[in-house]
Amino acid sequence: MRKMICMFMMILMSFASVLAQQNQDSLMIKRISDEVFMNGKAYENLRFLCKKVGPRLSGSAGAALAVDQTARMLREAGADTVYLQPCMVPRWERGAKEIGRASLNNGQTMPLNIVALGNAVGTPVGGISAQVIEVKSFKELEALGADKVKGKIVFYNYRMDPRFISTFAAYGDAGVYRSAGPSRAAELGAVAVIVRTLSPVLDDNPHTGATKYEEGKPKIPAVAISTNGAVELSKAITDGKVGSVYLKTNCKMLEDVLSYNVIGEIRGAEFPSEVITVGGHLDSWDLAEGAHDDGTGCMQSIEIIRAMKALGIQPKRTIRAVMFMNEENGLRGGTKYGEVAKTENKKFIMAMESDAGGFTPRGFGFSTDARQKEKIMSWKPLFHPYGASEFKEGGGGADIGPLRPLGTALIGLNPDSQRYMDLHHAKTDVFEAVSERELNLGTVVMAAMVYLVSQYGL
Amino acid sequence: MRKMICMFMMILMSFASVLAQQNQDSLMIKRISDEVFMNGKAYENLRFLCKKVGPRLSGSAGAALAVDQTARMLREAGADTVYLQPCMVPRWERGAKEIGRASLNNGQTMPLNIVALGNAVGTPVGGISAQVIEVKSFKELEALGADKVKGKIVFYNYRMDPRFISTFAAYGDAGVYRSAGPSRAAELGAVAVIVRTLSPVLDDNPHTGATKYEEGKPKIPAVAISTNGAVELSKAITDGKVGSVYLKTNCKMLEDVLSYNVIGEIRGAEFPSEVITVGGHLDSWDLAEGAHDDGTGCMQSIEIIRAMKALGIQPKRTIRAVMFMNEENGLRGGTKYGEVAKTENKKFIMAMESDAGGFTPRGFGFSTDARQKEKIMSWKPLFHPYGASEFKEGGGGADIGPLRPLGTALIGLNPDSQRYMDLHHAKTDVFEAVSERELNLGTVVMAAMVYLVSQYGL
Repeated sequence: MRKMICMFMMILMSFASVLAQQNQDSLMIKRISDEVFMNGKAYENLRFLCKKVGPRLSGSAGAALAVDQTARMLREAGADTVYLQPCMVPRWERGAKEIGRASLNNGQTMPLNIVALGNAVGTPVGGISAQVIEVKSFKELEALGADKVKGKIVFYNYRMDPRFISTFAAYGDAGVYRSAGPSRAAELGAVAVIVRTLSPVLDDNPHTGATKYEEGKPKIPAVAISTNGAVELSKAITDGKVGSVYLKTNCKMLEDVLSYNVIGEIRGAEFPSEVITVGGHLDSWDLAEGAHDDGTGCMQSIEIIRAMKALGIQPKRTIRAVMFMNEENGLRGGTKYGEVAKTENKKFIMAMESDAGGFTPRGFGFSTDARQKEKIMSWKPLFHPYGASEFKEGGGGADIGPLRPLGTALIGLNPDSQRYMDLHHAKTDVFEAVSERELNLGTVVMAAMVYLVSQYGL
Repeated sequence: MRKMICMFMMILMSFASVLAQQNQDSLMIKRISDEVFMNGKAYENLRFLCKKVGPRLSGSAGAALAVDQTARMLREAGADTVYLQPCMVPRWERGAKEIGRASLNNGQTMPLNIVALGNAVGTPVGGISAQVIEVKSFKELEALGADKVKGKIVFYNYRMDPRFISTFAAYGDAGVYRSAGPSRAAELGAVAVIVRTLSPVLDDNPHTGATKYEEGKPKIPAVAISTNGAVELSKAITDGKVGSVYLKTNCKMLEDVLSYNVIGEIRGAEFPSEVITVGGHLDSWDLAEGAHDDGTGCMQSIEIIRAMKALGIQPKRTIRAVMFMNEENGLRGGTKYGEVAKTENKKFIMAMESDAGGFTPRGFGFSTDARQKEKIMSWKPLFHPYGASEFKEGGGGADIGPLRPLGTALIGLNPDSQRYMDLHHAKTDVFEAVSERELNLGTVVMAAMVYLVSQYGL
């Protein structure tokens, strides 16, 4: 009986100690939250990145300026070390504004609101003129066969499905036409493709984004058309009004150039060789300011360094804020970071990415082993006051993916997804579309997770 | 042993039947969700309400037009019955644009970016000119005492505290200066008050909103100043630059006029005398379009009727969509609805209000008894796929509050609060600030809750 009481007391004490610890952690997270909301610099840094640097596609002057300026921000945030990690990146240029128009059988022309897809080849100097053929799916395309597709422009008019609650799920579903559409059409002899914009809203903003030519298939020009434009073109085709379509794009892929990941570190006080990576990607499409994609992820990562330094927190493990270069059209920065990590004599225990927009946080997605998962799950109550306690399996981020083979636990911030696809890769992805409080709240929960891992390891 | 097996089987079967039921409910909610996202009319109805009706403060021509137009929307949604519930409402008018300026000691003047607070009295025709005295709190005001306050304009410069995660908590904390500030200052002899705008962002948009004069105290003019304006004025005062302040407002309270709550019903198929109320308020402040406050709540309530009718759902209990009049400056519509409810020979089992903006839903707040709570809590898993499973005690809505004494369970939709206070009662509360998907997702979870109560009662 005495033994049982003793055991019971021990369990009780250990339970009480866990509670006391969680209470301490909760207070520290509140301190971080107060610091971010009272003195946060992420929003003003983002304004600078959007308005003074602007678009920063890999290899562009904007990207080079973004490297310099985020290195400065990291130094001003108080990082112990700030350095650049070189990597070669592709350099794709859009060139002059694209032209698209349909010649109607009544002699009139209908302008098409288009932009070239990223990484696409341009048309010949004189443009391309051909009949257009509309399909709603690859199945419809295959059913037509080479006979009917050869020499034509294929118009993929697949509507992004609004029934998915997560717009990322809808994006995954519809995104195959942007990525694989050109090669699938080229295989059947098409001369170009027009892809309906990946957006749940009807408007006049075509969204760009990378396409991916399949090895060994002909590379044909590829453009996105605005959702309103897609509806209008489809109607004209259905009504039998369209004679031919003319497309002229001026984009091209140039030689690779040297660029950089930008890294700022706080050295771990007890286990400096255990590294926590937290980042976003610095490059952005050329049509806008790359505010949500992914200026916010970068600014949040820098803010974590700033807030910890401002509060005098000395993390036990090393924290690295990383601005990855070239997520949009090559992933060279993330790949390089993973390659270098293998050669460093360090343990990359956790990597977190924020690349789903600077919206109000809902939780995290995890790619971990069972032991790591258990530990992370035990922290879930700490995130409840900040509305970020949806902890889901699966997730991470494109740039941190190359770390997974090292056993690194990957964590992706999951902000609310409802508004993201309205502006993703479109000219509307600008500073004004970001809410200061949503941005800050995202930073708070990221910082909380980074803090917990830095104190307790994984 | 046989008895035990028998009991075990019974428990298992009842568990299986609950699961099967929840699965059926889950499928029905998915059908509602698909209908709202595929064919929803709330967004286009909101566009009409914002752009064709516009501001609709109680007693205004806009409010009268809003009554007609939402009655039309309810009929078009397929409501079995649509009717108006008369109520007298106050009629406050802003009049010509306000003027505010500080005379500086160097002979220059500093314009003050102000708007009159709702329900406030206007200044005399010639305006008011007086010395200004800044306080950060009522405590500071009381410490000054009548000697120092008499004859002056009191400037309440209390910053909305950004450390609250819920902006409604911050609003509650800071809101006392807008509501009680004028009477507290008048008691000490002040001639007018300037209140810092209730907003977490620094910008040039003063936010209006109702003030409340205390019975028996002198009524003095009251204005809100933009957050940027508050910072600027405070600095000028601190620097000793301000001589006097001039205020001219032209607002006045007129005689009460007749207005209406707008009600559309689907009659319950099995228990028609058990009534579920779901609504928002139709009136809105005069500075903007009342998009989030509370056009969205009204359009969501109409959409619930439309979606149910479109899907051929015959609810067991009666569902009433109600557009309440006069929430902003009198609550006469909600009060009238409660009064009439007492005289109806019906059971008002549940009332839900959406009046916290048309943002992405996070969950609900409940004011219920223990039995009602238990039942509602059992439905929580059904809301998880829609990101609205934060079920909290406390909540409801101003308009449905008068039903609580009837034993009605009150439920308030809790959307994400981060962006609401940026535009609440300001000229920026316009249609363009609403996301179609966020609006629709809010409707889906409201409709789901209404559906469950209509099937199972409370």
